[in-house]
Amino acid sequence: MLSLLEPTDPSWVQAAEADLDGLLRDHAHCELKAAQSALGLLGRFGGEAPEIIEPLVALAREEAQHFEQVHAELAQRGAELTSPASDPYVQGLRRAAREDHREAPVLLDRLLVCALIEARSCERFKLLSERLGSERLRDFYRGLMASEARHYGLFRGLAEARFGALARERLGVLAAREAAVAAHLPLGPTVHG
Amino acid sequence: MLSLLEPTDPSWVQAAEADLDGLLRDHAHCELKAAQSALGLLGRFGGEAPEIIEPLVALAREEAQHFEQVHAELAQRGAELTSPASDPYVQGLRRAAREDHREAPVLLDRLLVCALIEARSCERFKLLSERLGSERLRDFYRGLMASEARHYGLFRGLAEARFGALARERLGVLAAREAAVAAHLPLGPTVHG
Repeated sequence: MLSLLEPTDPSWVQAAEADLDGLLRDHAHCELKAAQSALGLLGRFGGEAPEIIEPLVALAREEAQHFEQVHAELAQRGAELTSPASDPYVQGLRRAAREDHREAPVLLDRLLVCALIEARSCERFKLLSERLGSERLRDFYRGLMASEARHYGLFRGLAEARFGALARERLGVLAAREAAVAAHLPLGPTVHG
Repeated sequence: MLSLLEPTDPSWVQAAEADLDGLLRDHAHCELKAAQSALGLLGRFGGEAPEIIEPLVALAREEAQHFEQVHAELAQRGAELTSPASDPYVQGLRRAAREDHREAPVLLDRLLVCALIEARSCERFKLLSERLGSERLRDFYRGLMASEARHYGLFRGLAEARFGALARERLGVLAAREAAVAAHLPLGPTVHG
């Protein structure tokens, strides 16, 4: 359902649980970057594809709210935000999509990369919602997991509505690359690490 | 009250009125960029200055809503968003602040540059609210003018709360540079042009 071809090793949850502050810090920045990226995407492509504007503004607003929720969790733990680190998963996925960028319109690839990032986050949050020790955090991630699934559907739906069969075909190509990128990252206390 | 040392030539309104679609397009991108910039700022500095997080998330949400309002105006006129252009005013102001960046903490300059951009937008929107031919657009810009004034106060207040006298002194320095940057731009159908 989520297009993911390679499941996350469940032992990733142990790496995350060993540094929950680190996980939440990274997660907070993921939400912020997702909001910024949605605004950038609709700013760049909203002229040629006005149908993306409204849903992506709403998405950005929701991601900003999730950031606030994650930040509140951090604050409750007495931890603070740190400077944003680079995200090798997202960078690797974008690079992988550009390998043969002449095969697909830029907007299509941007939408599908967003869909896959949401899918992977959803899969990771599901693991957290099942396996973390804290009931409070399990509940927290169960709620966010549902949002990520919805966002995956949004990006995939925008891609298919505009690009039809090409979108479905390209999603298969990029999903294979996503699996390769995800499989080569060390398991660490980050959302995509 | 707004720290601006050089008023805008009111004939700018004629240049704006001659291409209202162009003005609204540029304005839409200004709102989007303001939202992205607020999220970037709190992501980078929210660790050392947690007090900026909540107001800047709220600001980003408001700017995104303003973007939607400006986009609705555009759509009602049968016009579409175009790709974002560079903003020589904002670029010039940032470059001018970096001239002697060792004189002030980066966060202080970022807050004050945002304050000055909001102040200039407020001044420009006031002119539009007084001089545009369309009553509808005059009302529209009157409402937004009040928001920009509030945002100016927010950024200035955050700067002063953290940096005290240094913030007031630096605001004077940067306001002089802002006036020079604004005075050298040709009058065109853009918010800061």
